[in-house]
Amino acid sequence: MANPDADVYPTATERAAETVALHQSPEPLVLWAGWFCPFAQRTWITLEEKGIPYKYTEVNPFVKEKHFLDINPRGMVPAIEYNGRAIYESLILCEFLEDQFPSTGPQMLPSDPVDRATARIWIDHVAKSILPTFMRVVQSQDPAKQASALVEFYSALRTFAAEVKEPFFLGETFSLVDVAIAPWIMRDHVLVTHRGYERAAASDAWARYAALVETRDSVLRTTSAKEHYTGIYARYLDNTAQSVVAKAVREGKPF
Amino acid sequence: MANPDADVYPTATERAAETVALHQSPEPLVLWAGWFCPFAQRTWITLEEKGIPYKYTEVNPFVKEKHFLDINPRGMVPAIEYNGRAIYESLILCEFLEDQFPSTGPQMLPSDPVDRATARIWIDHVAKSILPTFMRVVQSQDPAKQASALVEFYSALRTFAAEVKEPFFLGETFSLVDVAIAPWIMRDHVLVTHRGYERAAASDAWARYAALVETRDSVLRTTSAKEHYTGIYARYLDNTAQSVVAKAVREGKPF
Repeated sequence: MANPDADVYPTATERAAETVALHQSPEPLVLWAGWFCPFAQRTWITLEEKGIPYKYTEVNPFVKEKHFLDINPRGMVPAIEYNGRAIYESLILCEFLEDQFPSTGPQMLPSDPVDRATARIWIDHVAKSILPTFMRVVQSQDPAKQASALVEFYSALRTFAAEVKEPFFLGETFSLVDVAIAPWIMRDHVLVTHRGYERAAASDAWARYAALVETRDSVLRTTSAKEHYTGIYARYLDNTAQSVVAKAVREGKPF
Repeated sequence: MANPDADVYPTATERAAETVALHQSPEPLVLWAGWFCPFAQRTWITLEEKGIPYKYTEVNPFVKEKHFLDINPRGMVPAIEYNGRAIYESLILCEFLEDQFPSTGPQMLPSDPVDRATARIWIDHVAKSILPTFMRVVQSQDPAKQASALVEFYSALRTFAAEVKEPFFLGETFSLVDVAIAPWIMRDHVLVTHRGYERAAASDAWARYAALVETRDSVLRTTSAKEHYTGIYARYLDNTAQSVVAKAVREGKPF
């Protein structure tokens, strides 16, 4: 049987398609991405925020190009190719962009080491507490498990929101903490429609923060038409998706 | 009933006790640690490698000092107090020490941003692939589950070892990649004794690497008497430990 994930819509649409079209010329930096992938969107937002020149290449996760696998044998997406070498892991790529282009565009992590560590602590909270519970809310099939996952999800969001300095996580500056969470804010309509989630049920601070992040131009410029995300999430909502993340969530493993 | 974890041996012993004794004077940087905690040992090794002045404070995980909870309300260990503020998460603390003391002692991450990202990718592999399988090998009670966890553990170690430039992960320089894995090399005798683990069954490269890391002076200076680790792991081996990590492993959650 064909992989049910293999018929995902093939390319970015709407605002994201415009951004892809603007980034087709050869550049020293190539972003290998999937338009639908929230992890890829983190790296993409960071490139857009900083105004770093890059070429966008859509990776078909089921038919990966030879060159891509040559430089990145494990085939991980998102990946950045830079000077002929490939690196991956979305948050590591965001830090790489800060390290490699320190004076291109805004600085997205604080300079002070304690402040920087604090930003990383909250990025880690997104990765270890918010995302796994988001995915458990989506993939759980038993209503009681969905409900308990939703309680945990609200708790993780509330903890995060209580630390937001406003308007953004660190205050006036849009930072990598905001980048780390933004793609899941753009996808939470799936939880609203199918799992009874409401932002204000986490906290007013969370609802205010999410409403602001979803209007950020770099976030919008990397977001496709809503119905195509809905198509992808259908296979997560009935827990038949075969992606690395979907399998890790089913097996209770980190992703 | 009293928490069965509460009767852990109270202080560092042997080489680690000597190191604690040398770090009791007031300093701007305080390491809040548990002598038995492999995560704390990462941060401790980094302090020792770099020769940063610090005060070591043992935290009793069941009776936390008021000052510690005042600066670090979630009570996370290891923590670093610096200029009156507290930060936590062992790998974030290691990066903090690099950021805050760039010219004290050796540099423990590469300067080149692609090399630095690559180092972080392998630190991430330790965190997401090696440690969770180590803990599943320890905590699984069913022999079939222990065996399948051991197969996964060997696979994760083999993947890591295949990237070791030798003698250390990045070559001649002892780096944060080595720091990230070292505490679990020092504790793998528990797997040898109770779970049939042998280093060479992962790969010869792994056995060679582990044998070198366990002789590193900073690693030895932060290691206590073997029998006290054995005492702690007894409660992990029968899966009755009540630590945050033990519970996360049981629930299939990140730690």
